[in-house]
Amino acid sequence: MKKCVCIISGGMDSITMLHDLHKQDFDIYALSFNYGQKHCKELLYASENCKMLNILHKVINMREIGNELLSGSSLTSNIEMPEGNYDEENMKLTVVPNRNMIMLSLAIGYAISIEAGSVYYGAHSGDHAIYPDCRPAFLKALQKTALLCDWSKVKVKAPYLNLNKISILKRGLKIGVDYSKTWTCYNGREKACGKCGACQERLEAFRLNKITDPIQYDTI
Amino acid sequence: MKKCVCIISGGMDSITMLHDLHKQDFDIYALSFNYGQKHCKELLYASENCKMLNILHKVINMREIGNELLSGSSLTSNIEMPEGNYDEENMKLTVVPNRNMIMLSLAIGYAISIEAGSVYYGAHSGDHAIYPDCRPAFLKALQKTALLCDWSKVKVKAPYLNLNKISILKRGLKIGVDYSKTWTCYNGREKACGKCGACQERLEAFRLNKITDPIQYDTI
Repeated sequence: MKKCVCIISGGMDSITMLHDLHKQDFDIYALSFNYGQKHCKELLYASENCKMLNILHKVINMREIGNELLSGSSLTSNIEMPEGNYDEENMKLTVVPNRNMIMLSLAIGYAISIEAGSVYYGAHSGDHAIYPDCRPAFLKALQKTALLCDWSKVKVKAPYLNLNKISILKRGLKIGVDYSKTWTCYNGREKACGKCGACQERLEAFRLNKITDPIQYDTI
Repeated sequence: MKKCVCIISGGMDSITMLHDLHKQDFDIYALSFNYGQKHCKELLYASENCKMLNILHKVINMREIGNELLSGSSLTSNIEMPEGNYDEENMKLTVVPNRNMIMLSLAIGYAISIEAGSVYYGAHSGDHAIYPDCRPAFLKALQKTALLCDWSKVKVKAPYLNLNKISILKRGLKIGVDYSKTWTCYNGREKACGKCGACQERLEAFRLNKITDPIQYDTI
């Protein structure tokens, strides 16, 4: 059985990937990070999906480290959450500095310690423009680093790197992912806000797949 | 003033680097990691040196993460500490999986958030044979990754990469580093053991510099 570490946030992309790997008979060790986000709603969904699939799920508490070292992001600090479409200036505010490299480094360490051959994360093409650490060039450099950091040769994979959210959703629907058990909104209220960049992207993906998003929204 | 993050353990290499950067008028933000080592003696020396130089020193608590994700190392677990010379099989036991990549990723995140241009760590040529993540190829791959992970372009530097412990000590003695305020031994007893691989390397460096190590040893 192919043993791997799978980084999941609880959002639709990483949860689709989790089910996708499960369908492919991977022996999955799921890993999430609480890096001091304003809410942990998506982590609860991450856990729920793992429970459903009978997958060991570790949630690493990075709150203290986030507060101590990685301040300056609206996901972790008191800066007001930007609304509306993603654009570069807006989104710089929602980025935890070096988040993917930090999460991937820890996931690689975990993979080495449990003798898993690979680490999966859910970067996709929709993030390329706005997040440097979701781009192919970053992944390539990180993959190379991962092969040099230890005696073990851990492969880092981003199977959705060249898919957009619309195609990922299409794939997830095909393999029967229940999207009512995912959370995308940057706010952690009972219903998703429908206004933030993350909600807008999600809603567009459902619209273009001609299907209704099963979660509830405040504004629509 | 050149602003940088400097990763220090409290051992002789990183403490020499700290004083070296200080002499070169860097605006230093020192960073240490408590990743669940069996003792924290070297961290106390790290703090003492920073206090002396009036440098902000953050110690990041990675104990929980270490226990949760990175077990299997004799530095963090209950496996018996290997004595005698370093050799590959022995030293694999003292390695925390992916330690340098994890520490460097966090240091890069910190550098981004405080707008420092570079991250320094104390890898040296004596570690090349035994630690993959102290080798030039690893550093080069990581440097490239660091330039791609964010809008900021943080440079990762290992100024002693091609120096051995003997040359580093020579340099430190020249700039007046007080080596009684450094700790190298893998054991955390009052006196250094003089037997572990780390002590043996340290003692050799002093011997070849024709100077007496100012710290006390159990066995010599």
